[in-house]
Amino acid sequence: MNAAMPQQRPAPFERAAIIAVGSELLTPLRIDTNSLYITEQLNTLGIEVVFKGVVGDDRAELAHLVRSALERAGLIVLCGGLGPTDDDVTREVVADVLQRKLHERQEITERLRQRFAARGWQMPEINRRQAMVPEGADPIDNPNGTAPGLWIEHGDRVVLLLPGPPRELKPMLRGLVESRLQSRAAMTTLRRRIIRITGRTESHTEEAVQPLYAAWAAAAVPISATILAAFGQIELHLSARAETPEAAESALDRAAEQVRAVLGRDAYSTDGRALEEVVGDLLLARGWRIGVAESCTGGLITSRLTDVAGSSRYVDRSVVSYSNDAKTEMLGVPAALIAEHGAVSEPVAVAMAEGIRVSARLEVGIGVTGIAGPGGGTPEKPVGTVCVAVITPEASRVRTVRFMGEREQDKFQASQAALDMVRRMIATS
Amino acid sequence: MNAAMPQQRPAPFERAAIIAVGSELLTPLRIDTNSLYITEQLNTLGIEVVFKGVVGDDRAELAHLVRSALERAGLIVLCGGLGPTDDDVTREVVADVLQRKLHERQEITERLRQRFAARGWQMPEINRRQAMVPEGADPIDNPNGTAPGLWIEHGDRVVLLLPGPPRELKPMLRGLVESRLQSRAAMTTLRRRIIRITGRTESHTEEAVQPLYAAWAAAAVPISATILAAFGQIELHLSARAETPEAAESALDRAAEQVRAVLGRDAYSTDGRALEEVVGDLLLARGWRIGVAESCTGGLITSRLTDVAGSSRYVDRSVVSYSNDAKTEMLGVPAALIAEHGAVSEPVAVAMAEGIRVSARLEVGIGVTGIAGPGGGTPEKPVGTVCVAVITPEASRVRTVRFMGEREQDKFQASQAALDMVRRMIATS
Repeated sequence: MNAAMPQQRPAPFERAAIIAVGSELLTPLRIDTNSLYITEQLNTLGIEVVFKGVVGDDRAELAHLVRSALERAGLIVLCGGLGPTDDDVTREVVADVLQRKLHERQEITERLRQRFAARGWQMPEINRRQAMVPEGADPIDNPNGTAPGLWIEHGDRVVLLLPGPPRELKPMLRGLVESRLQSRAAMTTLRRRIIRITGRTESHTEEAVQPLYAAWAAAAVPISATILAAFGQIELHLSARAETPEAAESALDRAAEQVRAVLGRDAYSTDGRALEEVVGDLLLARGWRIGVAESCTGGLITSRLTDVAGSSRYVDRSVVSYSNDAKTEMLGVPAALIAEHGAVSEPVAVAMAEGIRVSARLEVGIGVTGIAGPGGGTPEKPVGTVCVAVITPEASRVRTVRFMGEREQDKFQASQAALDMVRRMIATS
Repeated sequence: MNAAMPQQRPAPFERAAIIAVGSELLTPLRIDTNSLYITEQLNTLGIEVVFKGVVGDDRAELAHLVRSALERAGLIVLCGGLGPTDDDVTREVVADVLQRKLHERQEITERLRQRFAARGWQMPEINRRQAMVPEGADPIDNPNGTAPGLWIEHGDRVVLLLPGPPRELKPMLRGLVESRLQSRAAMTTLRRRIIRITGRTESHTEEAVQPLYAAWAAAAVPISATILAAFGQIELHLSARAETPEAAESALDRAAEQVRAVLGRDAYSTDGRALEEVVGDLLLARGWRIGVAESCTGGLITSRLTDVAGSSRYVDRSVVSYSNDAKTEMLGVPAALIAEHGAVSEPVAVAMAEGIRVSARLEVGIGVTGIAGPGGGTPEKPVGTVCVAVITPEASRVRTVRFMGEREQDKFQASQAALDMVRRMIATS
């Protein structure tokens, strides 16, 4: 305490709790994913999430949880339950726990009426509930929906109510992170970095990276690391807490550089880019265009490539040749080749890659053929067998891999294998 | 209380809380999904989940949460934090909260040593922590890993500790559901059903279905309902609690039938099937094969169709014609047509659908062309504009829609619009 200080800066937030409200989130069918985005945003301000909870549209349970969170965190973020109907209880429960009355704000009601009127509708009276604001709370404008957010200061705590739909929640939270949340955050920042790795198991990755850990822990800006196995890749998650974003980022840059030195080309991304983005950037750098002849992946490889904005600069065309006729007619794969080796074979994969590449006058062709399952396997070629071929102006490669997952998992892993083969063949450094 | 009862059956569980333990689950990068499986299994016994929580490897937070859960639920399921290392705190914290001492069980240590020995390794001494069992607790064998589960009775409560890895957790829980959990569950079962809907907003669905609610609530087997908006569709979730699974299922059957009568063809699935499965079944019933000419969806429609096992019976081939040349060369779309109307236009979508259908001698052709964004929009054709055409032996249809999401969301919505158009055109009832 310093009595000479002209004005007291409120205690900074260091610990946050996130509460998701909605009975559907307690069924086997839905999961709260908003908390991931909220965590990411709070972490940029150095605010750590110490607890996440999910409750249904149940006043008693929600009240219990809000009370409990108020004991343990400086910032409590609630999402969901701000709709106009009876089972939207968040506003009322929070007002009750904080012992504040709710009052209708005429300017919000008016804005809601205009919102409905702009669509030629009359506002249902029930929507007036969304204009109810606890005493002393600040409503937060919601350009993408009817439910305003609410910012409520309670002693040195802040309770923040956000609407559940991601397209309403995200811009609202982003705005707060750049304004009121930032000014209440601690003077440190927590930054994370994902390094994505192919061609190694979890333990081979650990073996290679572990010697770096001791120096990371002892550094001026300490780095902590976790290794996680995901489908078709390994992820190394690094985090750094520092006084400025720049200090945290540059410590992460250095650590990522060390990892790259140790793992070489197996570390395909140190900046969060997905494999399809890395491949796209490599194609752009070469000025090459790509075409894909897909069988068992059913269009997934091309769909992933075209998930990237600007991919029309290098994706020209693709063919999903599910039937043998399609392979012959659209890609020029000789029927005799299919008869001799089978549709799932390395020669057919190569002919597919060459077929799309030559017919479309492209630099890079991919051919993928396999047995997606659950039916169609044989003792020699069991379900999950996939042949992948890639042809570039410089080289041609083909390999057979076998996946052991379920249909959709195998499709993803096959797409991962194909994109990774392209990456390794055209990477220049 | 009935003193004449020969033995007291313990109070049945009706309410469960699930606690996931692990610091990685409080980052933006990982989410607890075990709770979905746990919920599904508990629901089959009529046990409802009233609360889910996530905490890091933090003794104080976990202890707080366990205490709080003990006040509110008959069954507390914890998962994760049973490993051998220092940051695996679940065993110790639970023993502490329940005020029980931990003792090493020699038979568990012995089993762990054998497990390691079978792989030619010596057990690290640290693994003895996994043989520590709170007084009065029953260890549960884990054939797929080193961490045994723990079943702890505490008054009329049960605290259940499960390992975090799904391949260890799932068989362990399944075993309990068939034995100890079943015998402690209420004599009811809770079953759920999802009805999937297109062509209506959330509120139009509510309007149509609401008149059914009163009768559902008053029925011998009451049905409760929730409406949820998902991308490109609306979901109506029904749940029924009954004394037998058969009674619950037949009440859900009746309710689903009523919904179908009210919503007509807008309710595309009352049995959990995804849209691509419904379309596949309709194609099979007609004996028709399908081909897709995709531009902005980049292969996603075909990838969704081929996510379904057995789809090779009706998916023949598809083309991703990202460039104008590809549309002309592979689908025979006249260059003049593109020049006159633009690549994103209804005539081009129709020509694409007809191109794939005729060249491949298929019954059904889809053509989709649009502006995926974020670049490429114009005032007349803004980002998100998509033209969808479907041609069958019976009819031809084309429409222009506009989506307002981000690139991947628009791709999904466009694929949804195309598949739904096919469904409506070939549905016979």
